Amino acid sequence: MAPPDSALARLRSHLHQTRLLGSISSALYYDQNTVMPAAGAAWRGDQLALLAGQLHERQSSADYAELVAAAEDELDADALPERRRNLQLLRLELERQRCLDPALVAALAKAQSRGNAVWQDARARNDFAAFAPALQELIALRRQQASQLAAAEPVARSPWEVLAQPFEPEVTKARLEELFAPLKTELPHLLQQVAGSRSVEPACTSRGGAEPLDWPEAMQEELCTALLERWGYDASRCQRSRSAHPFSCTVGPQDFRITTRVVPGQPLSAFLATAHEWGHSLYEQGLPRSGDHYFPWPLGEATSMGVHESQSLFWECRVARSRAFAERWHPHFCAALGREPWGDAEGFWRALNPLRPGLIRVEADELSYCLHIVLRYELELALLEQDMPVEALPEQWNQRMHNLLGIQPQSDAEGCLQDIHWAEGLFGYFPSYALGHLISAQLAEAMEQEWGEGAIEAAIGAGQESRLHDWLAQRVYPLGRSVDAEGLVQQVSGAPLSAAPFLRYLRHKLEPLQA
Amino acid sequence: MAPPDSALARLRSHLHQTRLLGSISSALYYDQNTVMPAAGAAWRGDQLALLAGQLHERQSSADYAELVAAAEDELDADALPERRRNLQLLRLELERQRCLDPALVAALAKAQSRGNAVWQDARARNDFAAFAPALQELIALRRQQASQLAAAEPVARSPWEVLAQPFEPEVTKARLEELFAPLKTELPHLLQQVAGSRSVEPACTSRGGAEPLDWPEAMQEELCTALLERWGYDASRCQRSRSAHPFSCTVGPQDFRITTRVVPGQPLSAFLATAHEWGHSLYEQGLPRSGDHYFPWPLGEATSMGVHESQSLFWECRVARSRAFAERWHPHFCAALGREPWGDAEGFWRALNPLRPGLIRVEADELSYCLHIVLRYELELALLEQDMPVEALPEQWNQRMHNLLGIQPQSDAEGCLQDIHWAEGLFGYFPSYALGHLISAQLAEAMEQEWGEGAIEAAIGAGQESRLHDWLAQRVYPLGRSVDAEGLVQQVSGAPLSAAPFLRYLRHKLEPLQA
Repeated sequence: MAPPDSALARLRSHLHQTRLLGSISSALYYDQNTVMPAAGAAWRGDQLALLAGQLHERQSSADYAELVAAAEDELDADALPERRRNLQLLRLELERQRCLDPALVAALAKAQSRGNAVWQDARARNDFAAFAPALQELIALRRQQASQLAAAEPVARSPWEVLAQPFEPEVTKARLEELFAPLKTELPHLLQQVAGSRSVEPACTSRGGAEPLDWPEAMQEELCTALLERWGYDASRCQRSRSAHPFSCTVGPQDFRITTRVVPGQPLSAFLATAHEWGHSLYEQGLPRSGDHYFPWPLGEATSMGVHESQSLFWECRVARSRAFAERWHPHFCAALGREPWGDAEGFWRALNPLRPGLIRVEADELSYCLHIVLRYELELALLEQDMPVEALPEQWNQRMHNLLGIQPQSDAEGCLQDIHWAEGLFGYFPSYALGHLISAQLAEAMEQEWGEGAIEAAIGAGQESRLHDWLAQRVYPLGRSVDAEGLVQQVSGAPLSAAPFLRYLRHKLEPLQA
Repeated sequence: MAPPDSALARLRSHLHQTRLLGSISSALYYDQNTVMPAAGAAWRGDQLALLAGQLHERQSSADYAELVAAAEDELDADALPERRRNLQLLRLELERQRCLDPALVAALAKAQSRGNAVWQDARARNDFAAFAPALQELIALRRQQASQLAAAEPVARSPWEVLAQPFEPEVTKARLEELFAPLKTELPHLLQQVAGSRSVEPACTSRGGAEPLDWPEAMQEELCTALLERWGYDASRCQRSRSAHPFSCTVGPQDFRITTRVVPGQPLSAFLATAHEWGHSLYEQGLPRSGDHYFPWPLGEATSMGVHESQSLFWECRVARSRAFAERWHPHFCAALGREPWGDAEGFWRALNPLRPGLIRVEADELSYCLHIVLRYELELALLEQDMPVEALPEQWNQRMHNLLGIQPQSDAEGCLQDIHWAEGLFGYFPSYALGHLISAQLAEAMEQEWGEGAIEAAIGAGQESRLHDWLAQRVYPLGRSVDAEGLVQQVSGAPLSAAPFLRYLRHKLEPLQA
């Protein structure tokens, strides 16, 4: 415990207030996406901008910089490594904030807001040309930002790498290319195999013509509630609502929210999204909070977006789409539905795993998801670092989609206009989604190396998902930002991150589907 | 329109930001009382305290004071009266903020928080002695606050009057005694009359033994929805939720929220509370917003708490508890319920108007409500200005309750410990509730002076409540803080505020009940 008048104690108190402010934004975001009436949007935007301005000020002011410097001066030779690491992370973030020109920050905020509006309209009208100038401006501004930020980086990084740091600390293009190369080779091959085998077997029943695809909302809600209750949902710390897009958000150290939605025509969507968002929330709930070095310090934060995604994907894909889970939950679904539309538990499992390439990333399954990411990642590099003109984007998108997934969009709305990320200038984020799949698979392999092959399915089959949670809560959650994603994987699995476990997992999963 | 670099324009921008900050607190309050999980309470308290500190700073800083002074300096002889009034109101509030000792502000905040906690516990255990020291401390601090604030008041005011100013501008004890005197004489008399007539007629059926008092929640919700739809509820600007205690709150200039609750054993409670809260919300929605002198200036704010309450009571009592309303809605209630438990529409009307004295203020009807307020008002004066020891409170409460309402609590929990107000040091607020009844009645009389006697019942009977709303929206809502409550009543009704219209209304209402 630092003496109350030390710079360290004052810095801690500053960070605590920063966390309070940030969490107010989270509460407003949650309200905005669950209950706020539409006419409240403009005022809400002003509220959030006010808080963002205050946050930026707290994280870049001269007073704060002095506080960090004073805390660094207090470090002596025998200071704990946790304390050093926290100060290093704060110093890096401070330098990043401070090397940005405020005029650029303001210009970016404006361009992002404009980009979003133009994109909404362009997508609705399938008019890429209307969006192109806004995208061009965002790219120019983000390149400028990257060049300003580069000065703060401790090592040389390319513009794309600089922009990706906040999401995936220490990520490099070289490493991503290494990780993605086997995905680019193997996944299209696996997709073809499945397509071949599927053509000779009856279509998955819930996707067939007979079954009406809309189940009553109340029934879908009940199944989600049953799932959350089995997975440790505690209403005194958690709140669940409906929103247009599912998300998970943390409003306070003891206040966790998740949302789901019922999607017409996709009766399993709400259930799987609940599993996904709950995985995010479990991770947030398990981040280290007690002790001198965690909350509100950086060490108490999520390791990276890739690790965050690995936790949601573990619960969605590895658990809720597993064979054992399908067998255990098949009776519950039949009872809720009042009939049996899949033939048997095997059919229900296939319904949980359609495994068909589609045009839309957010609807993609485990087999094609990473290819959607590879496509976006490579296009981001082309746009940001290789001077590809934005006008070439639709054609490049469609051609790459054809090469990777064997399908092609009929319109830009379901092609290069489908995601919101670029419309808000968000470059550098997409790869974290793919890393989530790889990390989840490698952590699962580590779990089975400890417990024996098939132990995860066995635990699920026995309704003992709490064992899986306990393992993650002991090995993964406590690491926070003491490591980056690669460091976390190395520490937990004993091996460097690689695509091999993910590909092994997929091949194993596909075996019965090709029988 | 003021030139953009004028002090007036800068002041306006300052006030706009202050409103933004304040509305963030409102959004957090709404979230806290509708969806926040219990474990989030401590962090939420810290979030709200952070915002309260920022608000106080914005409203009392030297920079802000300079801005107000500069705007005053810009006033010339032909400045519009609205501009003068806004600056006067801002100056008064600024002086109030600035004459408070920050140490006292902090001590009060702490004592209020402690008072609330001690009271919760003391009420649960019916232990007034445990609460007495906390109450004593709050009284001492509030007296100190009143003595500091007195310096800012433009006229001499007693301590109680000083504390009541934020809720009811310009209120005086002399005026309240004048207004309350006829209530103290007449209401007990009317209560006795009703009690006498009720003893010889069958009990109102929904209160009788046969009808189970709990209706399905979904059915109660549906009736509330039907009411709101008839009364102009617009989901694009409004949001409705459930909470432990009903309230109305404004989260942005186009973002209005109300809540209701289903009360076991009181099947009409949710419906009447919805009418009440919607009355508050309609007023907020109708406050003047356009033009140079209104939002975010003081003129765009509610006139007073008494006027606010007059608007909720108008829709709850004058409209939803009226005979014409009962006749119109009787079939809807029977259809929703699937049977007829009241005998006829007359019986339903009686169920909406139980008119029996009870111990609890928040459950009191139009006949006894104001007596609950008189009792509290007189005790506040005794505690704050007449050196009544807090230990005497229970006995004084019970004795006055007996004198005014003819009943006596069996415990302090349902006596002097029932309300939260004093537990948070909130003195000076209660009379606004009673003023709300008087103002509502006088506005209704003015309406009928214009339209003819019985016109309100006729409009309700014809399902034309929108006419009532239009009248209020033209005469009452636009006044904002251009006047105080007395000024509003004088301007709208052409006569000074008095208890006579309220007593006339009650006598008229009671006639059929005594037949």
